[in-house]
Amino acid sequence: MSEPVILINGQPATTLSVADRGLQYGDGLFETIPFRHGKLEYLDAHIERLLRGCNRLQIDFTDLALLQHELVTLCAQTAEDAVIKIMITRGSGGRGYKPPLDALPQRIIASHPLPDYPTHYSEGVTVQLCSIRLSSNPLLAGIKHLNRLEQVLARNEWSTDAIAEGLMLDYQDRLVEGTMSNLFLVKDEHLLTPNLNESGIEGIMRQRVIELASVLNMPTEITTLNMDDLYQADEVFLTNSLINIWPVTALSGTNKTWSHGTITQRLQKALSTTDN
Amino acid sequence: MSEPVILINGQPATTLSVADRGLQYGDGLFETIPFRHGKLEYLDAHIERLLRGCNRLQIDFTDLALLQHELVTLCAQTAEDAVIKIMITRGSGGRGYKPPLDALPQRIIASHPLPDYPTHYSEGVTVQLCSIRLSSNPLLAGIKHLNRLEQVLARNEWSTDAIAEGLMLDYQDRLVEGTMSNLFLVKDEHLLTPNLNESGIEGIMRQRVIELASVLNMPTEITTLNMDDLYQADEVFLTNSLINIWPVTALSGTNKTWSHGTITQRLQKALSTTDN
Repeated sequence: MSEPVILINGQPATTLSVADRGLQYGDGLFETIPFRHGKLEYLDAHIERLLRGCNRLQIDFTDLALLQHELVTLCAQTAEDAVIKIMITRGSGGRGYKPPLDALPQRIIASHPLPDYPTHYSEGVTVQLCSIRLSSNPLLAGIKHLNRLEQVLARNEWSTDAIAEGLMLDYQDRLVEGTMSNLFLVKDEHLLTPNLNESGIEGIMRQRVIELASVLNMPTEITTLNMDDLYQADEVFLTNSLINIWPVTALSGTNKTWSHGTITQRLQKALSTTDN
Repeated sequence: MSEPVILINGQPATTLSVADRGLQYGDGLFETIPFRHGKLEYLDAHIERLLRGCNRLQIDFTDLALLQHELVTLCAQTAEDAVIKIMITRGSGGRGYKPPLDALPQRIIASHPLPDYPTHYSEGVTVQLCSIRLSSNPLLAGIKHLNRLEQVLARNEWSTDAIAEGLMLDYQDRLVEGTMSNLFLVKDEHLLTPNLNESGIEGIMRQRVIELASVLNMPTEITTLNMDDLYQADEVFLTNSLINIWPVTALSGTNKTWSHGTITQRLQKALSTTDN
């Protein structure tokens, strides 16, 4: 596995000031973007979400052209397929939690090896239900900020490779998402996915699947879902930018199984034949 | 203002790996401890909370003796009164959110100038009610972890020095704490403070005040409080390790005022005459 190539504000570097508020408070945002076949997939959508997050956190990030230039530089040094991670932090300074007026947002971009899950896409995965729940905060919901302890603790609930992902509920017993993915159910040929108004991350692939479903004339509902809905679903799948679409075929610790059904397959096929 | 002195794992340094999970996910904890008159105040209590946080986040921090030695080293370089901030992160590595089994926790300690609020302690402060709410998660409540976006956004709701602190509600309309302090009410000579089972940080000074109240035979309740309780309180005060006890004398945007009452004064006096 090759070492990651990292650029901080355009310069090769591996370290950041400990005064940076990204470290001090998780005061920043990130994106993980696959670089495959020489292309950053759905880059525009990732950048759009990043800017939406900056806006929500009132981070005055104005160096978009520089960031895009640096992404080109980084990708030019990236020989093979990779994951490009972008972090934008608010920068250093301020008295305690109060963000300084003159904060200088930091741009950190790094290329990492692309994880490889050879059979998950075709054969499906087993998931488990996490005991740790997602807290609700509309102000932080949807965006991909750096406060990720709930995901860290949830992901730490299992160690076996036999489980590919954990599903997370909120404190109202609503199914929200996986630790690193969004969740879709298929019921009576309707596509259902949780609304993310109070918690969760609005995935780029989630949005792409919703768009594809529209093109394919699949009725789609962004709605409230719970464990009963999961049990009664005809098909279940997970999405994120790196994994695309993983069929879910079993819920660990239960007898519940699902097939890799036709709706999931149609969406996988539509995605793979769509230029992004 | 002198530059902060920083030790990372005992070595003078100013930067940390961008791969550190403290930055990537807020995967760590912190403490801020006043160093006054040559002494780290309530050090044992801070260390105890730090270890409780490590335990809760399953961070395998075993270098306590090293940390304590490094604190001595840092304080020896600190000529005047200061704030010592400790951060313990889980370290680098892991595949995504999953913490690596061999993570090497990082010890970051830094001295900063002690903030000076000359009259707040004696004359009291005006607070405002923040519109941003605290989310509830019992697993993250009480400990001083690095996921602090709610506090950052709350603290960003005001800019004037006329307001010293913001009070925060949770989504069940319960009063929880200030952005950087714990909250106490006095009603009919009873001391009341919110329970922090679902959100908030269990402050060292909060615990100290509860202990002092016991010594002074003040009836104390750790309970559920809301805005009505605040309005009906006879006295209101805030605590943290740096500010000790600040009387609250007014709620911004309302006509509500409180006096710097006798119970608050008794606790301030008891605190200032107690060896810590």
